[in-house]
Amino acid sequence: MPYGFVGSMRARPGRRGEVVAILLEGTDGLRAAGCSLYAVGVPEGDPDLIMVTEIWESKKHHDDSLHLPETKAAIARAMPLLTGEFSSQEMTVLGGLGV
Amino acid sequence: MPYGFVGSMRARPGRRGEVVAILLEGTDGLRAAGCSLYAVGVPEGDPDLIMVTEIWESKKHHDDSLHLPETKAAIARAMPLLTGEFSSQEMTVLGGLGV
Repeated sequence: MPYGFVGSMRARPGRRGEVVAILLEGTDGLRAAGCSLYAVGVPEGDPDLIMVTEIWESKKHHDDSLHLPETKAAIARAMPLLTGEFSSQEMTVLGGLGV
Repeated sequence: MPYGFVGSMRARPGRRGEVVAILLEGTDGLRAAGCSLYAVGVPEGDPDLIMVTEIWESKKHHDDSLHLPETKAAIARAMPLLTGEFSSQEMTVLGGLGV
């Protein structure tokens, strides 16, 4: 069953655009790593929040991706721009459209 | 920009499988209605929670879909199986993979 991840992170005031740019840079290798969806979004009414929604072949594919050099580099660049407030929800994807 | 929706709902004890089945029934018409992703998932460690992740061409496409007869019928069937505890987060999808 595919693995789903929905997370949020809070940027320091005024830095959200930079974080979004970093998150959208390294998407080329994602499909080869087992990712079928990686969506970066922003809610209305909260100028600092960023949402990331991901679907992977398995939790292992997702976890392994965190060790890729480009992923680690992106995380290292983004972290100083974030407040440290994160949320996450993992799930097993049972079906639907586009999954 | 695409519109994203991440929501959760809580099934009455023992009824989650029925709700998931209802949610997965009516997916045929979603693409024609402007939906590119509709994922029904369940988290580990919570036997009654259901997560729904959706990406649509626009918020209007999503909102209009709630008025389709098949959607209204599915909602009517699912509601008695739910506790009434819902969460939702709307977003503008800025980019990624598969969006």
